Amino acid sequence: MVEVRRLLRSPLYWLLLFAPATLVLELAAASPIWVLLSASLAIIPLAGLIGEGTESLAAHTGPRIGGLLNATLGNAAELIITIVAIREGLLELVKASITGSIIGNLLFVLGLSMVWGGVRNGRQTFERRRAQTDSIQLLLAVTALAIPSLFGQSASGINGATEVEALSLGVAALMMAIYGLGLFFSLRGGDGPLTRRSAEEVVHKPAWTVRGALTVLGLSTLGVVWLSEVLVHQVEPVVRGLGVSQFFLGVILVPIVGNIAEHLVAVKVAARNQMSLSVEIAVGSSLQIALFVVPVLVFLSLALGHPLTLVFNGFELIALIGAVVIVNQVASDGESNWLEGAELLALYLILALAFFLLH
Amino acid sequence: MVEVRRLLRSPLYWLLLFAPATLVLELAAASPIWVLLSASLAIIPLAGLIGEGTESLAAHTGPRIGGLLNATLGNAAELIITIVAIREGLLELVKASITGSIIGNLLFVLGLSMVWGGVRNGRQTFERRRAQTDSIQLLLAVTALAIPSLFGQSASGINGATEVEALSLGVAALMMAIYGLGLFFSLRGGDGPLTRRSAEEVVHKPAWTVRGALTVLGLSTLGVVWLSEVLVHQVEPVVRGLGVSQFFLGVILVPIVGNIAEHLVAVKVAARNQMSLSVEIAVGSSLQIALFVVPVLVFLSLALGHPLTLVFNGFELIALIGAVVIVNQVASDGESNWLEGAELLALYLILALAFFLLH
Amino acid sequence: MVEVRRLLRSPLYWLLLFAPATLVLELAAASPIWVLLSASLAIIPLAGLIGEGTESLAAHTGPRIGGLLNATLGNAAELIITIVAIREGLLELVKASITGSIIGNLLFVLGLSMVWGGVRNGRQTFERRRAQTDSIQLLLAVTALAIPSLFGQSASGINGATEVEALSLGVAALMMAIYGLGLFFSLRGGDGPLTRRSAEEVVHKPAWTVRGALTVLGLSTLGVVWLSEVLVHQVEPVVRGLGVSQFFLGVILVPIVGNIAEHLVAVKVAARNQMSLSVEIAVGSSLQIALFVVPVLVFLSLALGHPLTLVFNGFELIALIGAVVIVNQVASDGESNWLEGAELLALYLILALAFFLLH
Repeated sequence: MVEVRRLLRSPLYWLLLFAPATLVLELAAASPIWVLLSASLAIIPLAGLIGEGTESLAAHTGPRIGGLLNATLGNAAELIITIVAIREGLLELVKASITGSIIGNLLFVLGLSMVWGGVRNGRQTFERRRAQTDSIQLLLAVTALAIPSLFGQSASGINGATEVEALSLGVAALMMAIYGLGLFFSLRGGDGPLTRRSAEEVVHKPAWTVRGALTVLGLSTLGVVWLSEVLVHQVEPVVRGLGVSQFFLGVILVPIVGNIAEHLVAVKVAARNQMSLSVEIAVGSSLQIALFVVPVLVFLSLALGHPLTLVFNGFELIALIGAVVIVNQVASDGESNWLEGAELLALYLILALAFFLLH
Repeated sequence: MVEVRRLLRSPLYWLLLFAPATLVLELAAASPIWVLLSASLAIIPLAGLIGEGTESLAAHTGPRIGGLLNATLGNAAELIITIVAIREGLLELVKASITGSIIGNLLFVLGLSMVWGGVRNGRQTFERRRAQTDSIQLLLAVTALAIPSLFGQSASGINGATEVEALSLGVAALMMAIYGLGLFFSLRGGDGPLTRRSAEEVVHKPAWTVRGALTVLGLSTLGVVWLSEVLVHQVEPVVRGLGVSQFFLGVILVPIVGNIAEHLVAVKVAARNQMSLSVEIAVGSSLQIALFVVPVLVFLSLALGHPLTLVFNGFELIALIGAVVIVNQVASDGESNWLEGAELLALYLILALAFFLLH
Repeated sequence: MVEVRRLLRSPLYWLLLFAPATLVLELAAASPIWVLLSASLAIIPLAGLIGEGTESLAAHTGPRIGGLLNATLGNAAELIITIVAIREGLLELVKASITGSIIGNLLFVLGLSMVWGGVRNGRQTFERRRAQTDSIQLLLAVTALAIPSLFGQSASGINGATEVEALSLGVAALMMAIYGLGLFFSLRGGDGPLTRRSAEEVVHKPAWTVRGALTVLGLSTLGVVWLSEVLVHQVEPVVRGLGVSQFFLGVILVPIVGNIAEHLVAVKVAARNQMSLSVEIAVGSSLQIALFVVPVLVFLSLALGHPLTLVFNGFELIALIGAVVIVNQVASDGESNWLEGAELLALYLILALAFFLLH
């Protein structure tokens, strides 16, 4: 019960109280917006628990298997939400949340880390070589991801749905292959971005037992599945009621809900002046989304009868490519300060405002 | 009267004779094109005098206030011309001159500096770290500047004028905030691009007295205001008469007229093998336009009843983003030679030709 | 006859047997696809012989003239094929092959070099400074190349054929000027990308005599001219018969046929852990295409009565700009591994798939 006591010490886990609240609100047939908010708040700590469970397990299995675990379960909560959304046919929400996760990591999380770390530690440096290698891989992955959209958008381009579908599947298959090669590369000794160092080593938390970790993993996964169902069902009523677009919910809400626990870790290590790890988390997490989450969603969506094609809209492409090019420049420099962080945050706010104004 | 004697020694200031010439031409109701040319030529030395007056004042006030003065008055002449143009409703001219100033600094001034400096000094190096930090800030600022256009251009995008207006104001407010943070950052000891080292220190000119500087500043500002009125009034007749577009005048003419004095300083220090300062001037001046001139124009335009939205056309976006990405690469390298400079100039010429061919 | 014996030892030259085979197939009025394939296979060794002849000649003339020879004859085979295609009015094929050559060099050749070199040598490093200078020049050249298309594509842009033609000629003239300046720069002692070190020095092959080299050059040039005629004549029947687009043939087939011998050299030196030279070949060859082959084709096309305007389609632009930006990032890092190479190859495959799906 040490675990439970530790949990209660972290304010994040008080949000677990929103799980029963969601149940009550749903039974009471409350207004969709309240149910959506409550479910969202309840997912946050559960996503955090999946992350902690994974890291505890990794501590027991040694670095290799641990790296694999982190690489596959690192975005578990978001994967669950998006799979549930695909089953409901909310494909725009899913694609928006892929975009939102990547720009959230690259602009919001990195920006906040640089501001917070910079205010506390002044000019910060990070391992330039590693950051650059990782961000080049991200540039390659996001370019590949963007190709079907860029080809599909053109008027004289690929029109037939079959062809866009074929191109999407081709991209997904190659992404998955690169993901596999990337894991193999890391396991062979290279320190790739997919199996990054555990943040645990830095934050120094005691690991749970294997049994404890598995229990936590199982229970919180179940919780996230249930709450995702609830959340996804509220999307359409909320969109109709509030006039906010499905797109905006996908870009801003889903990524925050699914990843905020990990985001907090990135900011925390930046405050401890370990900017290298902070950059690794932001870039590595984006890369896992592009190389692992996206292909899994594309293939699963076929099985679920709602095929997801990799055709992002123009705003998503602008935001994705812009964020990745900027992070490549930022990483090639090897140092950061709070002003650079503030500029990344400003860019995120401008994008969020633009997404909000879209219909 | 030492100042007057010194002025007469610099050939630039002989152009002051075009001020009375403009008055004569206007009274004689000369052909619009001659009045436009004469007014343009007369603004050049006055813009130079504003620059020298500011630097003299800065020499008396110490580096902090001096940095602030340079940061706010550095683009005074261009600011005056564009404000007058906004009052006349020539919004395309204003947006074109924003684009033209930035690409003029990044391609023309930097290119000329590299060619001239390279021919005289062979391979030149510059402070890579500083150049890279500055150009990353410029990349972030220009990306932010481009977002309303990129969102507005899309067919399925933001159509309502209100929304584009809201997004433009949001961008302008955030730019201004970043500008304020940037000044604060520089004053706290960081050497930001907004309050760069004075070129005076390098060119070693004697400073004027405070009183002399203030007199020069006041008189030349009045002169620029008057000549801007004259210039702006000739734009429409000249466009009608010559078949040159408002756009071309804005992209090429206004930036040269408003900034040529500063441009000459950048080339001069490159010739003295102080390439670091030359790069600082080109990038810093562009950054001041994006972060200070643009928001001021957006807010003032509201007050003047001709709201300026940040919707640039496709050509402006291509030129802006292309120039900024290229300068980021050029800066990350830390060295230059005349061939690189010649390529930047070639790109500027190609863009100028393309702008000229537009209708 | 030492030369002939050496040739027979290299499996590449066994492909010479396809030259008589092409003659037989043509006389027998065989199916166009077989004639096309046979002619393509026969061009490969002849293009290789032109390359070897040039390098042998260069070994006799000293580094300066040798550099010039390499710079002008380095893409001779592709130049011949495209000139024949222009005469036949296959302008889409020509533009596609320009695109294909550049992305082939930057993604396929560089990717294969990194994979092959990385598997054999682990992490490889290359001269960062040189690679970065070269790839910045490439970025500038490709941006210039893209400007007429970017301006022409816009709806409100340059519509008149005359203006696009004028802009294309302007770009071609400036490219040629930069090419001339680049050669001058190299000959003055700078080590520019246009007159790169001969790969011979690394691969250590005995040079032919001047007379032998000239004979080989003359005969293989004649052979390429004849086979290009055959190849180009089959393009339209094959396009009609197979449903593959002219565009796909241009992007994939022509560059491979014209350059595979040079490509093999790049991969070979990477395997010998001389990654610097491998990067130089890939980037330098792309630069020669942009700065030399393109202007020559634009000017010759005017004389041949089929004016080639530099209006690439959206897919070509995406591929070109994407590949160049990526190579700039990859080069700024100064090291490579097989994973990075695999990602470049994956991107090439995705583009090839997309081009294949286009109609």
